[in-house]
Amino acid sequence: MENKKENFSEWYNEIITLAELSDKRYPVKGMNVWLPYGWKIMSLIDSIVRRAVDKRNFQEVNFPILIGRSMLEVEFEHIRGFENEIYWVTKGGKEKLEEELALRPTSESAMYPMFSLWIRSHADLPLKIYQIVSVYRYETKHTRSFIRIREIHFFEAHTAHATYEDAEAQMDQYKEIWREISSLLCLPYFYDQRPDWDKFPGAMYTIAFDTVLPSGRSLQIGTIHQYGTNFSKNYDIKYLKEDGTFDYAHQTTYGMSERLLAAIIGIHGDDKGLVLPPDVAPIQVIIIPIPGAGVMEYARDVENTLNSINIRVKVDDRENYTPGYKFNDWEMRGVPLRIEIGEREVKNRTLTISMRNIQGKLTIERSKLIYEVPDTLIRIREKMMENAQKVFKDHVFRATKLEEFNRDGLITAFWCGSKECSDKIEAETEKSVLGFMVDSSETGKCVVCGKNGKMAVFSRSY
Amino acid sequence: MENKKENFSEWYNEIITLAELSDKRYPVKGMNVWLPYGWKIMSLIDSIVRRAVDKRNFQEVNFPILIGRSMLEVEFEHIRGFENEIYWVTKGGKEKLEEELALRPTSESAMYPMFSLWIRSHADLPLKIYQIVSVYRYETKHTRSFIRIREIHFFEAHTAHATYEDAEAQMDQYKEIWREISSLLCLPYFYDQRPDWDKFPGAMYTIAFDTVLPSGRSLQIGTIHQYGTNFSKNYDIKYLKEDGTFDYAHQTTYGMSERLLAAIIGIHGDDKGLVLPPDVAPIQVIIIPIPGAGVMEYARDVENTLNSINIRVKVDDRENYTPGYKFNDWEMRGVPLRIEIGEREVKNRTLTISMRNIQGKLTIERSKLIYEVPDTLIRIREKMMENAQKVFKDHVFRATKLEEFNRDGLITAFWCGSKECSDKIEAETEKSVLGFMVDSSETGKCVVCGKNGKMAVFSRSY
Repeated sequence: MENKKENFSEWYNEIITLAELSDKRYPVKGMNVWLPYGWKIMSLIDSIVRRAVDKRNFQEVNFPILIGRSMLEVEFEHIRGFENEIYWVTKGGKEKLEEELALRPTSESAMYPMFSLWIRSHADLPLKIYQIVSVYRYETKHTRSFIRIREIHFFEAHTAHATYEDAEAQMDQYKEIWREISSLLCLPYFYDQRPDWDKFPGAMYTIAFDTVLPSGRSLQIGTIHQYGTNFSKNYDIKYLKEDGTFDYAHQTTYGMSERLLAAIIGIHGDDKGLVLPPDVAPIQVIIIPIPGAGVMEYARDVENTLNSINIRVKVDDRENYTPGYKFNDWEMRGVPLRIEIGEREVKNRTLTISMRNIQGKLTIERSKLIYEVPDTLIRIREKMMENAQKVFKDHVFRATKLEEFNRDGLITAFWCGSKECSDKIEAETEKSVLGFMVDSSETGKCVVCGKNGKMAVFSRSY
Repeated sequence: MENKKENFSEWYNEIITLAELSDKRYPVKGMNVWLPYGWKIMSLIDSIVRRAVDKRNFQEVNFPILIGRSMLEVEFEHIRGFENEIYWVTKGGKEKLEEELALRPTSESAMYPMFSLWIRSHADLPLKIYQIVSVYRYETKHTRSFIRIREIHFFEAHTAHATYEDAEAQMDQYKEIWREISSLLCLPYFYDQRPDWDKFPGAMYTIAFDTVLPSGRSLQIGTIHQYGTNFSKNYDIKYLKEDGTFDYAHQTTYGMSERLLAAIIGIHGDDKGLVLPPDVAPIQVIIIPIPGAGVMEYARDVENTLNSINIRVKVDDRENYTPGYKFNDWEMRGVPLRIEIGEREVKNRTLTISMRNIQGKLTIERSKLIYEVPDTLIRIREKMMENAQKVFKDHVFRATKLEEFNRDGLITAFWCGSKECSDKIEAETEKSVLGFMVDSSETGKCVVCGKNGKMAVFSRSY
């Protein structure tokens, strides 16, 4: 296998192929096939997202994929931001369509004409919906699995509120949701407020969740947007207030994509292969029988016990492979916990366990299985987060002058907020601004012009 | 509400709107928005399908939506069958694409170029995959929610086998899967082998699962197809046999769609609204508190108990609605089981329950809740199936001459299998042949020409 540290890009591509996550050989350029193992991981990520939003009263919907050109053109900034990367359907059968239809690049323009019908009075607010669908971008840049592709597995939440304050409270709730999700996926991040020229087309402001891959390049893995009334004014989303007057709704959105999987692969993997957070591992526990008397029965019994407490477990009962081959195979696929069972374990009523991300083997009592396994999975997750945070920290560098920008990673520095200074940084260092750090209140002199500035983050980004 | 018996079509449309299953006001013609309640029911149907195929070693994948024209044109019959109803993407951004790309009408032509790469030797067989995705048809006929629309929520399983016998065994397994699914959805059906001119484009033969709606028109709710080597020869899907020679793989598919939901609505609903099979009801048990001392605490306690045994339960704690309003509201939404709790129930440690599809109220002991509720849900399902089968039977008529075809429903009659006779039937009775009944071995004289025939089914179909 490629060396992750030295050839990150090659390592990344190789592990996706070896672990059978997706197949890039599909004949349409920039579109990949989700293979069973990759799709299962993605579905488990989706489940975590669903749980986090469902319990906060979001409702799942599913909007059509096609959006009429006239629907898209309602919000000028919005269409301008996407027009170069939209796939257009122009024919049905052999007929030319009356109106060209876009494959959704995102769903504002599909949803908001319906919001306009659904929202009549304050009693209809807040409206909180989401969908998990594919979105489409005619990318002209170099594509990369799960990071930059033309068909993107996408989560998008959309809300409408009576007041700006309610919409701001929703922005806070998004952060709470993200904390919950990111802790299960073991992903460290910065909150960055994108500069105006890089915010979502049509938004008042955009906050991104940025992480960093071992290549030193940043990866945007989530964004939340405050729309204010920018869209509601254009799509005529009004509600009757208690005092009998009308007002426009205040809106927000939250977007994430299969980049969550890219981050998991890139941040946690090692030279043996994937390392999966237990909550998204299709197989959390792999049982490897070392052939011997009573071993298979014992293994099946352990499997049944773990099944009964909803652990995703599998016995590798393949006959033509050695235990050593199986160890490597499941390590490569990132299974968090391995249980070895041989005659000794059967005799002693014990189990030998190994964690994917922590060296060494442990012996546990068979009788304590239902406590030890869930506890160990939590320990694995905590250790993954700890490691990831350490690596993240190792990739963040504070700079006080431009020369210090020339290293791989995230650079934090004071910045005045001007496009001129950001352009100068980009020209001289190939790093562009991700935005002001939302969680920092530090102030200081801009690293370029020396005027008053706030703490910002810069990087080469994917 | 419309009268179901007298105005089925109007009733059907009205209940979809009232129960908030989907919204037809989306600005692109023939494409509807899945609303939360409808999407939840559909997702529960999907879960049932997933469980049934997962346990038989099918693996879920997800293929790109776009298919190059050249990929589609590999199998001539296949493209000819779909070419008039394909949506074509011809532009990316402002550029004309080099090759036109189809929105998948079905995924044979997307999957089989990959099968050709994946399948090398007999050890790769059988290959059994499925996906749950949207497919697209540029319908020119009148559209109808969940029955005939332009964006279709679709399940498609695809298999490849070493021999024709293995592929035939797969066809049998599909029937077993369908028996399992249809019993949970409480849907009666006939297996009909479609005549050659009506089989899936490219298939050797097609067997459909046909049901009948109260309008008397038949609804195809599933199809299984034996492809033999028709596709594998064109897409070059070959495998190395144990004897060192190569052979083409034998293939089958299984398709179902949101028509399953249409059938559930149409077959089970009544003049009060939806009646949902417990296994697909987003809320299986609705608890209605009749205001009084201790009622809310008691209701929450019952809710927690039911939650703990994985029953989907909700307390209707809305304050501005009367219990009577709530009864009607949840009946309209098809909730299978209602629990009423008032002061009397609190005092006696009992619960008053009503079933959506069985008249009358019952009193059960609070202490027996965790046995009574699951049992009652099964009883509801069994009764739904019983009713549905009765109604189905009432819509099937045996005919011995053409005059007897002129009534609403499914007509069974002997048929020689010729297109001429089927055309004559269609011209004179407006009913067309669904196919020979797979489960009938009866033979007799063709109802048109008098030659030897087998038992066939005829209908006006959706």
